[in-house]
Amino acid sequence: NHKRPASSSPMGPCSVSLRSHTCGELRPEHAGEKVALYGWVQYLRQDLFVILRDYSGLTQVLISQDDGSLNEKLGELTVESVVKVTGTVRRRPEGQENTNMPTGDIEVLAENLEVLNTCRKLPFEIKDFVKKSEALRMQYRYLDLRSTRMQQNLRLRSQLSMRMREYLCHQHGFVDVETPTLFKRTPGGAKEFLVPSREPGRFYSLPQSPQQFKQLLMVAGVDRYFQFARCYRDEGSKPDRQPEFTQVDIEMSFVEQAGVMALVEGLLRYSWPPELGGLSQPFPCITYSEAMRDYGSDKPDTRFHMKLVDISEVFVNTKIEFLKSALGQSEGSIQAICVPDGGRLFKSKDLEALKETARSVFGQELSVLAVRPEGTLKSPLSKHLSPSDTEGLLGETGARPGDLLLVSACSLHTVRPLLGKLRLQCAELMEARGVTLRDPTAFHFLWIVDFPLFLPKEGEPGSLESAHHPFTAPVAQDAHLVYTEPLQVRGQHYDLVLNGCEVGGGSIRIHKAAEQLHVLKNILKEDVSVLSHLLEALDSGAPPHGGIALGLDRLISLMVRAPSIRDVIAFPKSFRGHDLMSQAPDYVSEEDLKPYHISVTWPPAKTEEK
Amino acid sequence: NHKRPASSSPMGPCSVSLRSHTCGELRPEHAGEKVALYGWVQYLRQDLFVILRDYSGLTQVLISQDDGSLNEKLGELTVESVVKVTGTVRRRPEGQENTNMPTGDIEVLAENLEVLNTCRKLPFEIKDFVKKSEALRMQYRYLDLRSTRMQQNLRLRSQLSMRMREYLCHQHGFVDVETPTLFKRTPGGAKEFLVPSREPGRFYSLPQSPQQFKQLLMVAGVDRYFQFARCYRDEGSKPDRQPEFTQVDIEMSFVEQAGVMALVEGLLRYSWPPELGGLSQPFPCITYSEAMRDYGSDKPDTRFHMKLVDISEVFVNTKIEFLKSALGQSEGSIQAICVPDGGRLFKSKDLEALKETARSVFGQELSVLAVRPEGTLKSPLSKHLSPSDTEGLLGETGARPGDLLLVSACSLHTVRPLLGKLRLQCAELMEARGVTLRDPTAFHFLWIVDFPLFLPKEGEPGSLESAHHPFTAPVAQDAHLVYTEPLQVRGQHYDLVLNGCEVGGGSIRIHKAAEQLHVLKNILKEDVSVLSHLLEALDSGAPPHGGIALGLDRLISLMVRAPSIRDVIAFPKSFRGHDLMSQAPDYVSEEDLKPYHISVTWPPAKTEEK
Repeated sequence: NHKRPASSSPMGPCSVSLRSHTCGELRPEHAGEKVALYGWVQYLRQDLFVILRDYSGLTQVLISQDDGSLNEKLGELTVESVVKVTGTVRRRPEGQENTNMPTGDIEVLAENLEVLNTCRKLPFEIKDFVKKSEALRMQYRYLDLRSTRMQQNLRLRSQLSMRMREYLCHQHGFVDVETPTLFKRTPGGAKEFLVPSREPGRFYSLPQSPQQFKQLLMVAGVDRYFQFARCYRDEGSKPDRQPEFTQVDIEMSFVEQAGVMALVEGLLRYSWPPELGGLSQPFPCITYSEAMRDYGSDKPDTRFHMKLVDISEVFVNTKIEFLKSALGQSEGSIQAICVPDGGRLFKSKDLEALKETARSVFGQELSVLAVRPEGTLKSPLSKHLSPSDTEGLLGETGARPGDLLLVSACSLHTVRPLLGKLRLQCAELMEARGVTLRDPTAFHFLWIVDFPLFLPKEGEPGSLESAHHPFTAPVAQDAHLVYTEPLQVRGQHYDLVLNGCEVGGGSIRIHKAAEQLHVLKNILKEDVSVLSHLLEALDSGAPPHGGIALGLDRLISLMVRAPSIRDVIAFPKSFRGHDLMSQAPDYVSEEDLKPYHISVTWPPAKTEEK
Repeated sequence: NHKRPASSSPMGPCSVSLRSHTCGELRPEHAGEKVALYGWVQYLRQDLFVILRDYSGLTQVLISQDDGSLNEKLGELTVESVVKVTGTVRRRPEGQENTNMPTGDIEVLAENLEVLNTCRKLPFEIKDFVKKSEALRMQYRYLDLRSTRMQQNLRLRSQLSMRMREYLCHQHGFVDVETPTLFKRTPGGAKEFLVPSREPGRFYSLPQSPQQFKQLLMVAGVDRYFQFARCYRDEGSKPDRQPEFTQVDIEMSFVEQAGVMALVEGLLRYSWPPELGGLSQPFPCITYSEAMRDYGSDKPDTRFHMKLVDISEVFVNTKIEFLKSALGQSEGSIQAICVPDGGRLFKSKDLEALKETARSVFGQELSVLAVRPEGTLKSPLSKHLSPSDTEGLLGETGARPGDLLLVSACSLHTVRPLLGKLRLQCAELMEARGVTLRDPTAFHFLWIVDFPLFLPKEGEPGSLESAHHPFTAPVAQDAHLVYTEPLQVRGQHYDLVLNGCEVGGGSIRIHKAAEQLHVLKNILKEDVSVLSHLLEALDSGAPPHGGIALGLDRLISLMVRAPSIRDVIAFPKSFRGHDLMSQAPDYVSEEDLKPYHISVTWPPAKTEEK
C-alpha cells in the first residue's frame, strides 16, 4: 500500500513532475500529442481561449464551444488561477499563427480543465507592462517575481553562480568551504549586527565578510578556498544597500597579485552569459594614481573619455588672483574637463547644477568656459586670459569650437574628486540630452592597483587607518617603508571596477606574524589581543596567500542593467532595512527577550508610542 | 609599469600559481624536470631530507651535503615551516623507493630552498597519529584542519555539494535562489536567534529554515527552487548540534510525494562518492506505523534485524499479574525483542544497563528470558509460564537456544519506544563484544511515510500540534477528516533515514488558503495575523507544491563515518555554542549596544563576576 516513486522522465524540467510539458516548449512537431499542462491563467479571450503561463512561456488553450462542462469552468475562471489542462496539440489554423509567441504555431485543444487553485483579485496585474510602485512590489514580492524580468534575473543569477562554481571547482581545484556567520565582534565593528547569546552579556556578531576565516583556511592548508558567502552590514538606511548580501569569496595560497587577477578574468570569461557578448581579455589595469589623475575617481567609468586635464602649467605665471592663489597652496592645481559640444547641449540650468555640485559637495567655485566658433573663449574669466593662456588651454584640453571647459582650481585632494564627480554628472546630462555617450551594451572591466596601504585618519591628525583592511600586504619594493614612511607604502590591493562601479576587491595578505603585529600595533594602534588567534595562526606556518571578493548582487545588477540590486535579490529589504511583506523587523515580547538577558531601552519620546 | 597577469597553465591546482607541481603529483615520468614546490615541512630526516607536505600529499626533498648554504638553511628549519623548494626530480636510488608513498619512487634534488614562513613550536604535532583533545583541536582549528582526515572531509563535502548542484541545475532545471536570513520572528519560535535592529524594540530573527520563502517562491512561479541554506537554531547546549547548520533545501511545483522521493533518490545516486559503493534504488519505504511497530522508532536503523515482536496474543489468558494488568489498560501490549546469542554475549552488568534504561527513561520494568539449550526459558518469570506460553513465546519471536528475550508490557506508546531504544543499546553492546552486527560500510537509506498530521500537545490535553509543521498537506484520502477527526489524518510527509539517523524530511504542502487557515486557526489555535502574508499568497494563485530539506552536515558525517558533525564543519562551535578559537560569543560594550536600544539584564549572582 505504500506509494513508491513513479518511474518518470529522468531529465529536464518535467522530470518527476505531473506535467508532460512546460508552457513554453510545444512546437508544431508536437501536433497530435496528448499533453498535460500546468500553469497560471495569463489571459482569457473571447470565451474561447485560455492563455496558460509558466516560467518558460505561454501556450494558447482552445476550449471547444461544444463542451458544456468545459465552458462552465471557463466562465468561472479568473486570471492568475492555477489550472491543469489535458488535451491534444494541434497546429493553429492557417493565418492564426502568432509569430511573436514561441509557441504561436500551435494550440492545445482542451479535453479537460481542472482548476487547482482560484486566484483572488490581486493588488496589481501580472503583466510586464503594468507599472507598480516599489512599495507595492515589495509587499507582494511573490507576485512581483512572476514578471518576466524578475524570472530572468533570478535564473541568470542561478546560472552565473553555477558557472562560477564549475570554473573554480572543476578547472582550478578550489574547495567550497562554509564558514560561520555567528562570530566574534570585530573591534570597532560598528556595522556588525549583534546576536545575543543565552549567556548574560555575551553576543555573537554577524561578520561583514569571512576575511579571518578565509585566511585561517590558508593557514590550515586548504590551498584554494571559495564560498558564495552571505555577508552582513548594518548601515542603517542607505539607498541601494542591503543588510545582507552575497560575495563570491576566494582565497589562494602560493599566489601573487597577477595570479589572482588572471583567475578572476578567467572566472568572468567562463561564466559570462554569451548573450551579453564577449569580454576582452586581459582587463585593462591602471594604478590608483593614474585613476585619480585621469578620472578623479578610484572606480572610473571608462566607457567614455572626458578625462581630467592638469592645466596648472598654462597658468604658472598667471595674474588671475584665484588661480594664482590655488597654485600657491600646498598641492594646488588647476584642472579641467572638456565637454564635447557642451555649448549646445547644456542649458544654463545644467551649468547651474554642475556649479551647485562643486559648491555644495566640495565647497568650490567652478569656472565654465565655452569655445567660440572662432576659437576664442567665452567666460567671465576670458577678459583676464592672455592669447597664450587661451592657446595653452585649448592645446592642453583639446577643446574645439562648441565644447565647454569646466575648470576648477584648488588642492589636488579636492580638485580631482570634484571634476571626477562632475565628469559623471556631465555624462548623465549629455545622455539626458540624447547623446549616446556610454554604449548601453558595453561592459568595461578595469583593474585598479597600487593603492596606498594607509590613509590619514579623518579627524585625527597624525593617526593612520588602513585604506582597505589591516591584512593587506605592502608592495614588495615598499615593504621597508612600512617601518619608516607608512604613508608612502603601496598595498598589494586590487579593485575590480565594472562600468564605474566597484564589483570586487582583494589583496595579497600579510603572512608573517611580526609584520602583521607591527601594522596592527604600531601603525594602526589597535588592541591586538582581540586578534591574537590570527597572529598565532600566522606564526604557525602561514603560507603566502591572497584572494578577492566579488560583490555578486552588484555584478549581476550591472549585467542585467537593473536600476537597483533589489532587482536581482529574491526577497530584498527596503532601504530602511524592512521586509515589507512580513513586516520584519518586528516587536518581540519581553518574555522572548528573557533567555537572552537583554531588555529594550526605549527612547523617552517613543515609550508611549509602543 | 603595471604588473599584469602572467600567462599561466590554464587548468588544475597549479594554475595561476607560483608552484609548478603540488607535493602529491610527482612520479618517475617527471624525472629530470625542474620543479618549484611549495609546502609545509612534515619531517626533517638525517640532516639530509625534507619531507614537504601540501593537501595533495608528500614529496621527499634531498639536500645535497655539498651545498653549505642549503645545509645551513636545513639546520635552522622547523617542522610546519613553509618553504619553497626548487630542484630537479630524480628517481630514488634502487631499493630506497617507498611503496607506501604515492611519490615514493622519486625525490627532488634541491637546488634552492627558501623559507617563506617559520613555524613556532605548536601546541600539538601535525601528525595523523597524534591524539589531541577536542578542546585543543577547536582552539587551534587551523592546525587541526591540516590533518589528512579533516582535509578529506572538507574536500568530500565540497565535491558532494557540487555534484548535487549539477544534478539539480543541469539535469532537472532547478533554480538556485538565495533567501534572507534576517527575517521576522515566528510565533513561539523559541529556538530562533534574535538580531536587534536600530529601531527601538524591533528585532529580526534568524530562521530555522527557509520554509516560508521556499513556498513563496512557488507562488512566485519559480517552479523548481533549491538552496544550500544556512539555518539557525538556538537550542542552548546540546551535544552534536550546531547553532548554525546547512540544509539542502528543495521545493517543486506540480509534483506529488512520489516525485520528490524519486528526485532525492536520483540526487543521492548522482552525487554519491563512488568509493563508498553503489546505492540500491529505489530506497525501501515503510509507513510510520510499520516503523513504530517493527522498530519502535520513526528513524529505524535497518542495518540489523532484531525487530519488535508483539507477543500479547501469547498471554491473552495469562494469570501473570503484571502482564494481565498491562493488557488490561488502554492500548496495552506485551512485546519482545530477541537478542541472538545474547545469553553468551551479555554479562549481568549489560542486563542491568538495559533494565536501567527501561527504568530511568521509560519508568518500566524489563523482563529478561534466556533460552536454555533444551529450549526452556530461564527467568524469574519462568515458573509462572505454562508450556504453551513458552512455546508461543519461542514461536512468535523465533528465539533459539542461547538467545535472550527482552520483554516489556505496558501501553503501546511506551513499549515501542522502550524496546526501540533497547534494540539500539543491544546492538552497541553486541558490537562492543565483537559481534559484527551492522556492516560498517553499509548505507541503509529508508523512507518513512504516512506520518500522523497532528499529535496531541504534550501537557495540554485536548490541544493538538503539528507532527512536523503546519504547512504539511493531508494525505488525499484523509483530507475530509481534517474537519472531523484530525488525529486520524495522515500527512503527506516523508522522512529520509540513513543508518538510523534522520537525514531529511519534507512534505507536499497545503496550497489552498482556506485549508491552511482552518489548520492554523481551528486546529492549532495559532494567531493567524502573523502568517497573513502566507495566507494571502496562497490565495493569489499558489500552485500545488512540495519539497524536502536534507541535513547536509549530518549526511556527510554519516558518509565519512565521523563521530560528530563537528568533523565535517570547518569552524564548528563547541557544544556550549562557543568558538574556542576566537572566544565568541563575547562581551560587548554598553556603547556598542546603544544603537540597538538594548541593555543587558545581568542576573543578580553574575553582576559582580563581570
